[in-house]
Amino acid sequence: MKIALAQLNYHIGNFESNTKKIIEHIALAKAKGADLVVFAELAVCGYPPRDFLEFEEFISLCEDAAKQIAGHCQGIACIVGLPVKNEQAAGKDLYNAAYFIADGQVKAVTRKALLPNYDVFDEYRYFEPATQFSCIDFKGTRIALTICEDLWNINNNPLYVSNPMDVLINESPDIMINIAASPFSYQHDDERRAVLSDNAKKYNLPLLYVNQVGAQTEIIFDGGSMVFDSKGNLLHEMPYFKEHLSVYQLLDNKIQGFSPEEHQPVPDIAQIHDALILGIKDYFSKSGFSKAVLGLSGGIDSAIVCALACRALGPENVMAVLMPSKYSSDHSIKDALDLVEHFGCKHEIIPIAEAADAFDSMMSKAFTGLSFNLTEENIQARSRGIVVMAMSNKFGYILLNTSNKSECAVGYGTLYGDMCGAIGVIGDVYKTQIYELAHYINKDGEVIPENTIVKPPSAELRPGQKDSDSLPDYDTLDAILYQFIELKKSSAAIIALGYDEALVRRIIKMVNAAEFKRYQTPPILRVSPKAFGMGRRMPIVGKYLA
Amino acid sequence: MKIALAQLNYHIGNFESNTKKIIEHIALAKAKGADLVVFAELAVCGYPPRDFLEFEEFISLCEDAAKQIAGHCQGIACIVGLPVKNEQAAGKDLYNAAYFIADGQVKAVTRKALLPNYDVFDEYRYFEPATQFSCIDFKGTRIALTICEDLWNINNNPLYVSNPMDVLINESPDIMINIAASPFSYQHDDERRAVLSDNAKKYNLPLLYVNQVGAQTEIIFDGGSMVFDSKGNLLHEMPYFKEHLSVYQLLDNKIQGFSPEEHQPVPDIAQIHDALILGIKDYFSKSGFSKAVLGLSGGIDSAIVCALACRALGPENVMAVLMPSKYSSDHSIKDALDLVEHFGCKHEIIPIAEAADAFDSMMSKAFTGLSFNLTEENIQARSRGIVVMAMSNKFGYILLNTSNKSECAVGYGTLYGDMCGAIGVIGDVYKTQIYELAHYINKDGEVIPENTIVKPPSAELRPGQKDSDSLPDYDTLDAILYQFIELKKSSAAIIALGYDEALVRRIIKMVNAAEFKRYQTPPILRVSPKAFGMGRRMPIVGKYLA
Repeated sequence: MKIALAQLNYHIGNFESNTKKIIEHIALAKAKGADLVVFAELAVCGYPPRDFLEFEEFISLCEDAAKQIAGHCQGIACIVGLPVKNEQAAGKDLYNAAYFIADGQVKAVTRKALLPNYDVFDEYRYFEPATQFSCIDFKGTRIALTICEDLWNINNNPLYVSNPMDVLINESPDIMINIAASPFSYQHDDERRAVLSDNAKKYNLPLLYVNQVGAQTEIIFDGGSMVFDSKGNLLHEMPYFKEHLSVYQLLDNKIQGFSPEEHQPVPDIAQIHDALILGIKDYFSKSGFSKAVLGLSGGIDSAIVCALACRALGPENVMAVLMPSKYSSDHSIKDALDLVEHFGCKHEIIPIAEAADAFDSMMSKAFTGLSFNLTEENIQARSRGIVVMAMSNKFGYILLNTSNKSECAVGYGTLYGDMCGAIGVIGDVYKTQIYELAHYINKDGEVIPENTIVKPPSAELRPGQKDSDSLPDYDTLDAILYQFIELKKSSAAIIALGYDEALVRRIIKMVNAAEFKRYQTPPILRVSPKAFGMGRRMPIVGKYLA
Repeated sequence: MKIALAQLNYHIGNFESNTKKIIEHIALAKAKGADLVVFAELAVCGYPPRDFLEFEEFISLCEDAAKQIAGHCQGIACIVGLPVKNEQAAGKDLYNAAYFIADGQVKAVTRKALLPNYDVFDEYRYFEPATQFSCIDFKGTRIALTICEDLWNINNNPLYVSNPMDVLINESPDIMINIAASPFSYQHDDERRAVLSDNAKKYNLPLLYVNQVGAQTEIIFDGGSMVFDSKGNLLHEMPYFKEHLSVYQLLDNKIQGFSPEEHQPVPDIAQIHDALILGIKDYFSKSGFSKAVLGLSGGIDSAIVCALACRALGPENVMAVLMPSKYSSDHSIKDALDLVEHFGCKHEIIPIAEAADAFDSMMSKAFTGLSFNLTEENIQARSRGIVVMAMSNKFGYILLNTSNKSECAVGYGTLYGDMCGAIGVIGDVYKTQIYELAHYINKDGEVIPENTIVKPPSAELRPGQKDSDSLPDYDTLDAILYQFIELKKSSAAIIALGYDEALVRRIIKMVNAAEFKRYQTPPILRVSPKAFGMGRRMPIVGKYLA
């Protein structure tokens, strides 16, 4: 038997394009001699469909799409993920399921048992967990089909009290297939490969695994579908961050033509680079936009975002707006113009002095006798926000946010100012990683000018201002933030690692005081195991940590 | 036996104040002769603690607080809600639980089985559902204790496959106690009373129910704790939107001294009024702020918010900023000044012409040859945003957002302009309800000037602009929005009700196109069964409905 795995980029709720793509890949798999083609979890509607699932019509549209797809399963079978109704009175109305379709008909329905409901996942919001499991027999091969998380309960501190494969194994399957929508983080690919290998080994079965690829607003799927032999050896790995279809020949329940291979490790920063480019590209293409605008300060953050946007959308679709103020240093405009030249994107220079002066004058009565402080710094940042949003409104550019994770964390940014944007490109990338990313982008030649990389970071909102005036050095800051955000360590536990007590308490306080700001910021492309946004839900008026 | 129900206002993660309050009410209940005092679900840490629950230290602090509380349970027992660790290897790390404490010691632990994970609820994100249940024996009374949602599975299409009371009833309990954190919506109180009554009737037991009161950012708990006899008759109802402690005498498993009473219905709009005032009050007090600022346009929305803020915080703590532009009508300033006079709050008049002119001049090169459009309207709204945020930054005022639900829904508002603010006061109140609210506020005398109520709504961002230029009349708009947002009906289903097809499709498209804006707006005080925010999670790049 020949099994094709189709690693595709779906668009949530775009039944027309998803169905077309699935049908095309059924034809392609058939042309390559496959007996069975396997699509990912919730392929029919895209993942995560979120509250679209609460609309009855949405579920009907999934059913309609499945009917169309079934019509094309002649001479080839397919497995495809979709939500299906729970026909029992009790329990949630839906299952996260997969159809096994052959001869134009749905022959079996597999339902997901283990429903991730942590970090960015909300599956128990919509789905009833399955409690009954059985294998699928096809052309003499007995297939144990599971859906994503169903294979993830094999560690020592399992999150769920049941384990579908422990039931399915009693039916003596010949192979395992797992269909997934497993999002990228720079740490997740290694974990995923290990869990899948452990399953193959534990159940002593070959495992074929197909993942989605593509970005859905903030969540990026990296693909990397894989097959393993029954000893848990990796036999083949599909490309990351791209669509792909591979066909595997099964003989005597063994995958033919591949020997065990070592996974070729890719540096985290290279993965992050590719993920962000896919994230930008899909945000625009799936929203029906093509042109981006951003404020280019001459600093490293906006330089990185500009570079990534030019790579994702083409420099002809990127508008960089330089907005010097009286506090901008001499080199800032030069650095920014160097960048524009390197990148080949469009630019405008729009100084903000007139706006800053206008607000000074307008507020002069209310502010009588009060001196320049954070208020006036924020007015500058917000005037820039107005300028880039005006460019967006007038020309249909979509504004890219350029805040990095370190400043998002501590609230070092102006709400409605530099925190504006439709999508946060580097909001999940710490400042220390930003420097790595700059070097990675420059690896084949200087794209980001050296001066932009080496100069001390500054918001340039008052004379001679530097980030280091109010923040610790970024190595220390990022290390403490990682312990608190990614590892959820308490201040006591972080201090026990040897960090200065006052500093740790101050930083954690800053992070928590900035919750109200982060609540109002754009979705952030998620590349770490714990990004700001849907995956991190903190109380705003809470007192703990405050 | 005498049982006290303590309906209290907790503060998430504020262990010091929650513990102090609980201990004070143990003493108060004891002074009133109670044998047992009952506190609400997760009283120890406040509800919803959200991702604070993922910090081990947070759970330790809950345990420490429980120890302190236990020390005060001498001569009186207590039931109090808190998260407890799951000591089994499998399953999530925590239970949503309650301690039964007597003689200074935890005598029993009750764990919640039915975990709400819809709308604003995320309990399965943190908690393992309980599968074992037993009653608590105290002073000859057998108590069936359940936690909130545990009693909510008795309709015809139950959300859960298990039902804890069906197990507990086998132990022949004498009474039921339910501890809850059940949030307010103007529809929810009737539903809640009916469900509780049905439980009393079904199990033929008296039921004592204690709810939280108070607002936690956007979620408002209304209290209204109740007791029922074993026929499901309402015997007593505590006040809504206030803290309260009542003691009930139990004799022969009957609640003494109360006869069945009818619930006294309160108009929805009165409930909404009280909820919003509590919402504002608690947002400020729990954040440690006291002063509010808002833009006062002379229109009805900002007038309502100003009135509510003055009632919640005192007029001396409210700063209304009047920001006329060249498009402001003659009456707007007069209406706004009338309001300020009626309310007795502070005000500033800060015209925005200088800022609008400055941006016109700054953008003139980039915008050469292009005429006035939405861009320039947005510049005005955003200039106002800068002014009120400058007032906030300079003086420590917290900005109240004045967008109503109808305009939030269709995106009739400027992101980073009038959509700014720390908390959305009326973002869950449709425009048609805004008028009702105005009349309710004026019921004892004209607070909101008649002209503000009767004049046609306008954003006044271009000459002679009216809302009705680009939106249907609010009666129709709100009716369609309600079908789509609250009832999740598809466009086809709404059209089938008799609404104009093109209009319905246009409105639904507007709602979905505004998802990216709503993602970046402040938390909104929730008063309806479906508010924008955490309870409504729609994809941004999704294609369905777009």
